[in-house]
Amino acid sequence: MSKLVIVGTVAFDAIETPFGKTDKILGGAATYIGLSASQFNVNSAVVSVVGGDFPSEYIDLLSNRNIDTSKLEIVKEGKTFFWSGKYHNDMNSRDTLATELNVLENFNPVVPNDYKNAEVVMLGNLHPSVQQSVLDQMETKPKLVVLDTMNFWMDVALPELHSVIKNVDVITINDEEARQLTGEYSLVVAAQKIHEMGPKYVVIKKGEHGALLFHNDDIFYAPALPLKEVFDPTGAGDTFAGGFSGYLAKTEDYSFENMKNALIYGSTLASFCVEKFGTERMLTLKEDEVNQRLQQFKNLTQFDITLKNEN
Amino acid sequence: MSKLVIVGTVAFDAIETPFGKTDKILGGAATYIGLSASQFNVNSAVVSVVGGDFPSEYIDLLSNRNIDTSKLEIVKEGKTFFWSGKYHNDMNSRDTLATELNVLENFNPVVPNDYKNAEVVMLGNLHPSVQQSVLDQMETKPKLVVLDTMNFWMDVALPELHSVIKNVDVITINDEEARQLTGEYSLVVAAQKIHEMGPKYVVIKKGEHGALLFHNDDIFYAPALPLKEVFDPTGAGDTFAGGFSGYLAKTEDYSFENMKNALIYGSTLASFCVEKFGTERMLTLKEDEVNQRLQQFKNLTQFDITLKNEN
Repeated sequence: MSKLVIVGTVAFDAIETPFGKTDKILGGAATYIGLSASQFNVNSAVVSVVGGDFPSEYIDLLSNRNIDTSKLEIVKEGKTFFWSGKYHNDMNSRDTLATELNVLENFNPVVPNDYKNAEVVMLGNLHPSVQQSVLDQMETKPKLVVLDTMNFWMDVALPELHSVIKNVDVITINDEEARQLTGEYSLVVAAQKIHEMGPKYVVIKKGEHGALLFHNDDIFYAPALPLKEVFDPTGAGDTFAGGFSGYLAKTEDYSFENMKNALIYGSTLASFCVEKFGTERMLTLKEDEVNQRLQQFKNLTQFDITLKNEN
Repeated sequence: MSKLVIVGTVAFDAIETPFGKTDKILGGAATYIGLSASQFNVNSAVVSVVGGDFPSEYIDLLSNRNIDTSKLEIVKEGKTFFWSGKYHNDMNSRDTLATELNVLENFNPVVPNDYKNAEVVMLGNLHPSVQQSVLDQMETKPKLVVLDTMNFWMDVALPELHSVIKNVDVITINDEEARQLTGEYSLVVAAQKIHEMGPKYVVIKKGEHGALLFHNDDIFYAPALPLKEVFDPTGAGDTFAGGFSGYLAKTEDYSFENMKNALIYGSTLASFCVEKFGTERMLTLKEDEVNQRLQQFKNLTQFDITLKNEN
């Protein structure tokens, strides 16, 4: 069974959407990635940090899903990272109301010893130096390193971001961030420029408009499932990344062709995440629900045009 | 061979994009629809009006492609409809600089006698009463009526628009227009409301983000081909509609399954239209170029996940 190392935040979120608001609930990139990847038959470990205020039940939610939390550091005298945001009516934009780094400010990630030979490393959104530190601890070269990042790190830690990007196979980034990173409006040209920075595979996430996978001149497109309502988009990108990396770890096939399937699995899982607040929907998700939605993705995208040069 | 009636503007356009600007060139919804549909083996007729200032060479461009122009009325003392627009840097928005209706103001469309039994009617963007007048002239019930419209008619002729929408099988409309017409933000909910207005099939165009086809609870999604650069978006929506209706007229299969293919053909042809100014690219387009790009669409969208309940 493949091993998957996940680094990222484990956090408290307070969310406000047009449908309602929450108190402090379970959140964080590594949380969403871990819950999503746990849909697959892989061994995963979360490398992160929380404060003494973090409920042990939240940690149990992860460890009950076969996620190794031995290197989820608990700083007893510290407070857990806290993010609060409010979504606008169109759900495509949001205001950040609060960001309290707390224990994240002095975080030194530690990879569990028996994960230093993991096949897949998923570097969730965090300071690029923390992401690099995880890579530096690996004793065998991973088969696949996936990195997620955001515009904030382009603003405050661009050289460090460029350094770690050189060392990854896949980067996942949203459309505006791809444009910011490259100065190119066309996503095709932006992806080419990001290839030149290191990653052989570039995933550009377009929210409700789906996601594009670029590999040299090849492009694959996974739409987002059109939904009657999006209840809370928080964690959708991380859930996508968790599904993508989890599926690849499970299938142990890191080809472009199989990454297409990984992109569809990522989109499928993300389409559940947005149906309820926070992690709520991911915690009740069943395998047959996932399979049913994969069938919807097939119906949504597959067509039957036979060209002359085909059989 | 199926017959296709096309109504819409035949016009002069003056276009400015970040790549350059044109003088008055050939444009108009019916022009783009006709050129696009002429990629298929169908008999088509354009019902429209131009002024005495319209060059006969432009009419020849259409009739040379097996498009019946006998009811393209020429008002000798009148001037041709003129539209001028300037695209912003992102190419997704534009300012209209001039709209001169001219001969369109008193246009009474006349369907050629031998097209009054046409299988397919494509109602291009025009006043909804003109669109209805074309339907009223049909002597046999068409197998398929497709209507394209725009926000302008929602502002100035909403009751007439609702009247004609009742009588069509397919409506093509962009995302903002679907929201305006229904007051719903979710495109899934908007499509449901448009179903209730009459059309059994609803196509929502999202520009660079592709197009969605809705039929009751079924949804199909055709992406737009990701392009290095979009040179001039003018006519892309009409080219899409021409490819969609032309393909259906050629194959004589008006099922939802075949409409998926029609959507892909429409997207394929539109991806060529935007490569050069105005109709320029469509005038040189070859069949093997279309087939090559259809293959790109397959590569872009087709994946290979086998589910448990499938063979």
